Amino acid sequence: MIIDCHGHYTTAPPELEAYHNAQLKILADGGEPSKGTVSITDDQLKESLEGAQLKFQRERGTDLTIFSPRASRMAHHLGNETIARYWAGHCNDIIFRITELYPENFVGVCQLPQFPGVGPENCIPELERAVKELGMIGCNLNPDPSGGHWTSPPLTDRFWYPLYEKMVELDVPAMVHVSSSCNPNFHATGAHYLNADTTAFMQFLTADLFSDFPTLRFVIPHGGGAVPYHWGRYRGIAQDMGRGLLTDLIRDNIFFDTCVYHMAGIRLLTKIVPSDNILFGSEMVGAVRGVDPETGHYYDDTKRYLDDAHWLKKKEKKKIFEGNARKVYPRINAKLA
Amino acid sequence: MIIDCHGHYTTAPPELEAYHNAQLKILADGGEPSKGTVSITDDQLKESLEGAQLKFQRERGTDLTIFSPRASRMAHHLGNETIARYWAGHCNDIIFRITELYPENFVGVCQLPQFPGVGPENCIPELERAVKELGMIGCNLNPDPSGGHWTSPPLTDRFWYPLYEKMVELDVPAMVHVSSSCNPNFHATGAHYLNADTTAFMQFLTADLFSDFPTLRFVIPHGGGAVPYHWGRYRGIAQDMGRGLLTDLIRDNIFFDTCVYHMAGIRLLTKIVPSDNILFGSEMVGAVRGVDPETGHYYDDTKRYLDDAHWLKKKEKKKIFEGNARKVYPRINAKLA
Repeated sequence: MIIDCHGHYTTAPPELEAYHNAQLKILADGGEPSKGTVSITDDQLKESLEGAQLKFQRERGTDLTIFSPRASRMAHHLGNETIARYWAGHCNDIIFRITELYPENFVGVCQLPQFPGVGPENCIPELERAVKELGMIGCNLNPDPSGGHWTSPPLTDRFWYPLYEKMVELDVPAMVHVSSSCNPNFHATGAHYLNADTTAFMQFLTADLFSDFPTLRFVIPHGGGAVPYHWGRYRGIAQDMGRGLLTDLIRDNIFFDTCVYHMAGIRLLTKIVPSDNILFGSEMVGAVRGVDPETGHYYDDTKRYLDDAHWLKKKEKKKIFEGNARKVYPRINAKLA
Repeated sequence: MIIDCHGHYTTAPPELEAYHNAQLKILADGGEPSKGTVSITDDQLKESLEGAQLKFQRERGTDLTIFSPRASRMAHHLGNETIARYWAGHCNDIIFRITELYPENFVGVCQLPQFPGVGPENCIPELERAVKELGMIGCNLNPDPSGGHWTSPPLTDRFWYPLYEKMVELDVPAMVHVSSSCNPNFHATGAHYLNADTTAFMQFLTADLFSDFPTLRFVIPHGGGAVPYHWGRYRGIAQDMGRGLLTDLIRDNIFFDTCVYHMAGIRLLTKIVPSDNILFGSEMVGAVRGVDPETGHYYDDTKRYLDDAHWLKKKEKKKIFEGNARKVYPRINAKLA
């Protein structure tokens, strides 16, 4: 079985964003929007997926995608806390409907109603609802809800602990994933995403978060940002700081996906990072949508690179494609039973 | 000849930082410091280098280091514009003295008196002085003088153009290099540095800066941050945006150093990025000071990785070790004549 740990609903019908825009407009005009409804039919959902994610699953031979709302439109920096809550609720409901329509193809991960300056306690009800009522198996956690101004405390700060306590209780991991950037310095998918991955890893490296939460698990997407490429730098920094071995640091708590869109990058990732800490992911349909003229295949068809990774043993590939997802997102096992 | 394009004066006698701290204290106490003096003798300078940079040059077999003030202490976010000017002036004077003491071993690159919110016009006099009077061959340009709050416009914004005009006139490149971070999210050498590298590359990718300045040259240090590891992502993003080939984008304008502290990373860098766009660099003595137990050698002894890179032709290695530095920093040729 092949589980893709990193898919966002990037092909939603325009009604979804239109709802959010209307909410923001009411607020901008001095009003207070109510939650309201998002009118999208099942047929619209099906149509948006059949020619995209489902088609690529079939073509590429992947089975199940761990699926969450569009990351770049979480847009935690827009509106206010109430709108963030309504927006996360609707986005998660849509993902739930997709997982009901295609239970063989998608399992849900939720968006949290984060808002800059608001402690993550406000996310707990939605996380509980998503897991207990919508059958979701994890969440996306934005380390920078300000959208590129980085005004929140580091992920290792006690500020975040109430959310971590709930994650541990529910036995769900978080993918560390920023949203769009409102800082003109940072292109979202070309800089902000990768910077956040790198930043989060370094935060984890310099604190004792996993002593406090031994079972807390994070997936750092996009192949871990800059981290595997600079593994020697991080090993050396950890050594200089007396923080031990990276393999010990990450063992039960930090995992990288395989959203690296060329063979040389996948090679480095899989040669450097233990196979126990890598989850297959493609971010399909996502940041890069074209076909690589050097290979004739989609850049984000990351399964193909792994299939060709002859240095990986069969057992290691099985972990990357399936076993580690079952370990990191254990609630998936009930779904697959 | 082996030219290390990336060395900072990280081993300065404590008097240097003490001067800066005293300036900042006067300001904090409501005073207005005058430029004052930094009292460091030639013997102190020699002692600080003999057991460190010079020793490593000899041991590792490198010849000449392109040497600049300590990046993490540029600290453009501290003090005010005047103090930034005094501080850059003193730091550059110290580097000049080192290049006079050891003309065979060091050639200078200057610190700029940047300050958050101040346009880079204020850097032009110091850049001219450094190049014309102190014999320096380039500058370090901080894309985020706020120290982790990223409040300046992107490097491709016209905000920066006055400085670029002067760089082009003087025929000197800039290394894109942030300083320390006052944002608790970003560890300086483990996150902020690499994020800045990634960010700058993506800024260059999405704008037409090099149409406006065809001879403007930037070195993106630390192996280009996350960029080579995500080369497929960047090729794909450029393709989706109609920005052409990365090799065309970087050809005459963007260069990466080799400050990547393990063989797998150097392998990826040198297999993916054209050898015309790579400059040997070590950042010695810098971010990582230990010996790698996996190899028995210093992490930052990057010459060793390149020596072992059997896939590189002799001609390619010569470019990386010498030719590209002469091309990117052409004023070095007069020094070496």
